Amino acid sequence: MGQNILDADYAVRGDVIIRASQLEKSLQEGKKLKFTELVPCNIGNPQLLGQKPLTWIRQGLSLLVNPELLSIPSIISHYPSDIIERSKYLLSRLPGGVGAYSDSQGIPVVRETVSNYIGKRDQATPPNPDNIFLTAGASPSVETALSCLISSPKVGVMIPIPQYPLYSALIALKQGHPVGYYMEESPDQYWKLSIPRMQEAYDKAVREGYNVNSIVIINPGNPTGQVLSIENIKKIIEFSQKNRLVILADEVYQDNVYMANKEFRSFRKTVQELKLDSEVFSFHTLSKGFFGECGLRGGYMELLNIDSEVKAQILKLQSIQLCPSTLGQIALELALNPPVVGMPSYERFLEEKTGILESLKRKAQVMYEMLNSMDNVQCNFVEGAMYAMPSVRFSLRAIQAAKDLGMPADKFYALQVLENTGIIVVPGSGFGQQPGTYHFRITILSPESSIREILERFKAFNNSFHQQYKD
Amino acid sequence: MGQNILDADYAVRGDVIIRASQLEKSLQEGKKLKFTELVPCNIGNPQLLGQKPLTWIRQGLSLLVNPELLSIPSIISHYPSDIIERSKYLLSRLPGGVGAYSDSQGIPVVRETVSNYIGKRDQATPPNPDNIFLTAGASPSVETALSCLISSPKVGVMIPIPQYPLYSALIALKQGHPVGYYMEESPDQYWKLSIPRMQEAYDKAVREGYNVNSIVIINPGNPTGQVLSIENIKKIIEFSQKNRLVILADEVYQDNVYMANKEFRSFRKTVQELKLDSEVFSFHTLSKGFFGECGLRGGYMELLNIDSEVKAQILKLQSIQLCPSTLGQIALELALNPPVVGMPSYERFLEEKTGILESLKRKAQVMYEMLNSMDNVQCNFVEGAMYAMPSVRFSLRAIQAAKDLGMPADKFYALQVLENTGIIVVPGSGFGQQPGTYHFRITILSPESSIREILERFKAFNNSFHQQYKD
Repeated sequence: MGQNILDADYAVRGDVIIRASQLEKSLQEGKKLKFTELVPCNIGNPQLLGQKPLTWIRQGLSLLVNPELLSIPSIISHYPSDIIERSKYLLSRLPGGVGAYSDSQGIPVVRETVSNYIGKRDQATPPNPDNIFLTAGASPSVETALSCLISSPKVGVMIPIPQYPLYSALIALKQGHPVGYYMEESPDQYWKLSIPRMQEAYDKAVREGYNVNSIVIINPGNPTGQVLSIENIKKIIEFSQKNRLVILADEVYQDNVYMANKEFRSFRKTVQELKLDSEVFSFHTLSKGFFGECGLRGGYMELLNIDSEVKAQILKLQSIQLCPSTLGQIALELALNPPVVGMPSYERFLEEKTGILESLKRKAQVMYEMLNSMDNVQCNFVEGAMYAMPSVRFSLRAIQAAKDLGMPADKFYALQVLENTGIIVVPGSGFGQQPGTYHFRITILSPESSIREILERFKAFNNSFHQQYKD
Repeated sequence: MGQNILDADYAVRGDVIIRASQLEKSLQEGKKLKFTELVPCNIGNPQLLGQKPLTWIRQGLSLLVNPELLSIPSIISHYPSDIIERSKYLLSRLPGGVGAYSDSQGIPVVRETVSNYIGKRDQATPPNPDNIFLTAGASPSVETALSCLISSPKVGVMIPIPQYPLYSALIALKQGHPVGYYMEESPDQYWKLSIPRMQEAYDKAVREGYNVNSIVIINPGNPTGQVLSIENIKKIIEFSQKNRLVILADEVYQDNVYMANKEFRSFRKTVQELKLDSEVFSFHTLSKGFFGECGLRGGYMELLNIDSEVKAQILKLQSIQLCPSTLGQIALELALNPPVVGMPSYERFLEEKTGILESLKRKAQVMYEMLNSMDNVQCNFVEGAMYAMPSVRFSLRAIQAAKDLGMPADKFYALQVLENTGIIVVPGSGFGQQPGTYHFRITILSPESSIREILERFKAFNNSFHQQYKD
């Protein structure tokens, strides 16, 4: 077993989650606990918490996976004509159907759709579909990009702190060096990316002998929920140019923006407007947005200004794993090329999409308000993505109690929250944080019918916890 | 870009295939070539060549992906009652349906099915489902196993020569050392695994300072098509015990045995009968057998006698990628837990299964006969799997002509076959072979309606090639 594997840590499924599994088993065995069911707020898994899949996507998949249905009139009469046509068209572009390996880079018609989607989103010329790689969600494409970038243990990759732990885990596996840059909890109540902080982290790593060649930006932020302004994005691009950094733009929450005064802006669009030649890998997925199709494993990576020799190597890496799930690819096609005004499926699609996004927006607001009403908890706006990342002030006694158990105070707290309420949150130490500060990440995905009750229960425990450990 | 990535080579999708893509484009543009369509015999992709999916699997998937269908009587009346019941049961075991992330190790009910399948297959106690990891086909599980085994560049992994190039590619990526053991083209017309050859390869690597810790066995063989006898398997296990090697048993072709006097025997069963504690990783997939569901990406890895600390690390590695496709997992459940006598779907299932396997058996025989009728070509029995791996004797002139172009003779030959007939085969040099011998791999998957005609065309070209380059 290599040291790199032992070193890789993945908090989203870490110790708190392992304890939750044990408690789940106890509940199934009929043991009495302080709660009757677990409330999983640890991972962005919308359909587990009752979000319904989009009918358009599921109807299309059922026809593509079982094309016999297309020839049975009494079945097909239940399907809208547009999804029947789309399914027939996709089947005509799929020699061998969904059961054959596709091109390792991804099904050509799906890559064309992704390209058109990007063009529309950015109001710009669509990228060449040859620059699109389809993948089983965003995680494998991040792994591929990092495989290309980390050529020796001296390579540094800049990542935000707090970060989504996929990055630190993969950098450890690839035996690179993580160069963390701290995000600031600005008094304006959002998480801010500060260029001087980035420069500081970069300079320190260079002084230590690292070849820093890339920077990860997560926008909208996970776990921090901020939505970057155009000005901020421009400054980050200029910083990357100055220091010759490849940009890894994790843009999987591009549809998840809740604040009226914010909108998503891609790194791609901004690089092109600045007429720069920055190298950008950008990642998107079927698992987030309003699709929430985590289990289907679909996603893409778009390459901007990346050398063709690197592209050839990426294709080789993907070909070793043959191809991503064809059903995940097809679901991505349906998600990024949805029905438009005038099509029979449009009304239902729009209603479902709006329903999901409006609900997320309301829940983001409830989360912000309720967390800020809790003793010793302070939460920024949840501008986007699917998480709140509040800070918690702990008493010296609480910090000492945690220390006695050999763990940081936020892990101790998260475990206590779990044991007493069944609510699963991830301690901030799993994402990284400014030394001396403590946080936890909680998803905003619980159903609206119960989110207030859950947060009331959380609040009651939180307040009694701080009372108990009062200095 | 790391040297390990540049070093990884993957012949199944190598230069011959790249040239085939160019020719495909030329055909689409209406250019006149010596053939009107390409015949892809390079990769085990059955449904691309017309093999039909099993109705049972596809019906189940359509209900699981679109459970709305279950509530529409005029639709559901077209489905047999057993697949409706199974789908409802599986949905009851899937909180969040197929759109939620599953356990990283795989959906519990699917792991239970895999465990029962193994128990029945081996007529033995089923393994604990905790020892089963579900994966997106066999390739990712091989990658995970090799990640655990290769802890430094001094680690040697024994692989057969010829081998399926997944192994050499992954060992290069993980920066391990491949220790090839030659298989013998025995006069009995099958490819033989020889223990003295294995010992020789092992000793040489140890003398060179490598820590050889594992051995890959592919049974039934890819590309070599042999089906190992119990005696042979026993000797391999004893060899592994003696040299303390972890066994990687690639058993993805366990349903693909065509010779009346041969049957598949698992390494697991043999280790247990010998009452040994050999450590075994065994791999299986939805892509081969009579399922041929390559595009759905389903498979499993079973761990026998593997330390629980290693299991914990494997779970962590899988959790970084969240989970394999839920639809691939569900398809695996349906494939390994098919309808049995008395169930409404049984007749159709049996007819489809038998049809596919009998057809493969006939094609294995045709392939063997036709290849042996070609000048300078000699082919062993195709005992199992989906490939023939005949040897070709080249004239000195042919070898020189290839050398002038900077390539081995079998690659030159495969490219000539492609340009002149449209048939895509993979040169033996992509799999490894005894120095001074030449081979190619050809799949037995072309439709029965055309396989003879294709091979006649191949034969005509082959004979003229050898005539042209006669010494």
